[in-house]
Amino acid sequence: MNQRLESLLQAMKRRALSDLLICDPFAIYYLIDATIEAGERFSCLHLNSNGQMWLYQNRLFPIELPDELQVEIVWYSDHEQPLTGLAASLSTRVGVDKKFLARFLLPLIEAAPESHFELASELVDLIRSRKDSAECEAMRLASHLNDTAMGRMYEVLGTGKTELEMVDVLRKAYRDLGCDQFSFEPIIAYGAHASDPHHQNRDSKPVRGDSIVVDMGCIKDGYCSDMTRTFFYGEPSERGREVYETVLAANLNAIATVRPGISHAEVDAAARSVIEAAGYGPYFTHRLGHGIGLECHEGGDVSQGNTDLIEVGEIFSIEPGIYLPGELGVRIEDLVLVTEDGCELLNKYPKDLMIVEATD
Amino acid sequence: MNQRLESLLQAMKRRALSDLLICDPFAIYYLIDATIEAGERFSCLHLNSNGQMWLYQNRLFPIELPDELQVEIVWYSDHEQPLTGLAASLSTRVGVDKKFLARFLLPLIEAAPESHFELASELVDLIRSRKDSAECEAMRLASHLNDTAMGRMYEVLGTGKTELEMVDVLRKAYRDLGCDQFSFEPIIAYGAHASDPHHQNRDSKPVRGDSIVVDMGCIKDGYCSDMTRTFFYGEPSERGREVYETVLAANLNAIATVRPGISHAEVDAAARSVIEAAGYGPYFTHRLGHGIGLECHEGGDVSQGNTDLIEVGEIFSIEPGIYLPGELGVRIEDLVLVTEDGCELLNKYPKDLMIVEATD
Repeated sequence: MNQRLESLLQAMKRRALSDLLICDPFAIYYLIDATIEAGERFSCLHLNSNGQMWLYQNRLFPIELPDELQVEIVWYSDHEQPLTGLAASLSTRVGVDKKFLARFLLPLIEAAPESHFELASELVDLIRSRKDSAECEAMRLASHLNDTAMGRMYEVLGTGKTELEMVDVLRKAYRDLGCDQFSFEPIIAYGAHASDPHHQNRDSKPVRGDSIVVDMGCIKDGYCSDMTRTFFYGEPSERGREVYETVLAANLNAIATVRPGISHAEVDAAARSVIEAAGYGPYFTHRLGHGIGLECHEGGDVSQGNTDLIEVGEIFSIEPGIYLPGELGVRIEDLVLVTEDGCELLNKYPKDLMIVEATD
Repeated sequence: MNQRLESLLQAMKRRALSDLLICDPFAIYYLIDATIEAGERFSCLHLNSNGQMWLYQNRLFPIELPDELQVEIVWYSDHEQPLTGLAASLSTRVGVDKKFLARFLLPLIEAAPESHFELASELVDLIRSRKDSAECEAMRLASHLNDTAMGRMYEVLGTGKTELEMVDVLRKAYRDLGCDQFSFEPIIAYGAHASDPHHQNRDSKPVRGDSIVVDMGCIKDGYCSDMTRTFFYGEPSERGREVYETVLAANLNAIATVRPGISHAEVDAAARSVIEAAGYGPYFTHRLGHGIGLECHEGGDVSQGNTDLIEVGEIFSIEPGIYLPGELGVRIEDLVLVTEDGCELLNKYPKDLMIVEATD
């Protein structure tokens, strides 16, 4: 067993689980270093409290496991029913991961009436949230590439391309830099579009005075980056400038607050209080940040509700924003890695208010 | 209530369900004509056997419902727990849709100990599988655009672009044609890559003699297309030609077989038997097809295991393939719409063996 599986087995024992069922391919990759694909088919890693492991996998989706791991692959075909065998092998108290689908879970519960099923994702999520040194290196590299790509975006923004065309520019920049793919569909939002934090890119062009939100990330060697910068297309309005400086102050104050032992909620408050003091509280409508690693959104919400204490090795986003409906939006986002006495900033791209000079 | 909801309510009654919980955004869109987004948050349509409807939705994700529908929106904030209220409102026998996540389902089961939960997706899936006339029109248009885009791909293939560059060509073609987006990440597979039905596009260029699998689809007005053609880059080998003609015969035989009242498995057999007779049975490794509509993969597998009878209005893919590992692959895929006495072919792009003349 590797260190990650050992930690997981200890966590299972502390929670008195007899079995743990993991279907999330990212969690499986993290634990046994194997990339699992299964389309719509059932695929699941079963770990019991004796440390035995089985992987249920459809024959249509071949996989190879690292030799040194003692995982038995239970192959099944489309005309076979893998849940029956799985149910028969379960003991009394079964932990289930959060992404397990009702499609498989309800028949499994029916087939194993003696077992109690409970949500236990947090066992894996907690281990995943504390990145080891190899993961930190991968996260630094992905964010470095993201910084570089943001520079290319800034260079091109003045040419007046549409939001969708800027996505193409970004795709090419990432590819030239050797990135694997987007870590999420990027957001390029001009003017009033920027006031929707979940804006879907359109065929529109920037207009003088627009704020431009660029929220983007790549995957490199399996790890995700995620950064937002807000530029202005020509001189911003008075209000645009005030909103920008408020969001920047919130971003900086939150980053200055991060250290082990304080809660995630306190970091959220460090940003939110700055925005509230400036009178924009109602326009900061989302949590401050989210954990990130193999997935762009992982456990470890930086939100008012998460009072868990921050630990060394966590990586999360700090992304305050102010959204004035129909007018403008500003968001400034960086990733931070929690260190012994504070945090390391993974994004180095400048945050001073930058004006794009329109070349059209 | 609209016709779709009426049909669903009847199906619930036949199954003696007191409640039905639907979280799949496609199913919700289909039933109440509203586009729901909720990120990682809980979002669910609750229908009870009296025909009352509630939609649970996080305040961060605003939605608007059609006025004429009597759906009450139950808004909740991040610091509130919507599952408690939902659990209290459930009666004895609760149907759950297949995409419901354990993350929400297990706490809900715990909070509603008097209710029995069972999988009931098929109630909605069955109604969705029989397309009405507006849906058929949308599916015809999406496939027509896909035919046109395939023509553009064929024109460009001779220039020797990499698989990934051809994806860019396709993205641009779809955009020029006014399509919304890919219905799935397209597969452009050259030579030995074509022998992997789930190939991930790479930076490789075609080589003379390669088979080229192009599996692609767009979304137009919410509905998906999906078609595969296989070309040859220069003159094919003897074997390449034989494999192509076998797959084409399987495709044509299956299409000729489709009509209401026979089973999906019989259509699968009509293709599979042709491939088996030619000695390539072990190299046709997947089901013949899948239902398609709002989603690229919907209910109504065309597979050996699905003995359900085919009904008028179903739309599914017919996509036999032969995959010779490390050598070549051929797949030919069309969508068909089941009519009173057979089927209407939605893809008109030619299927005779076509050779791409390399211009490099």
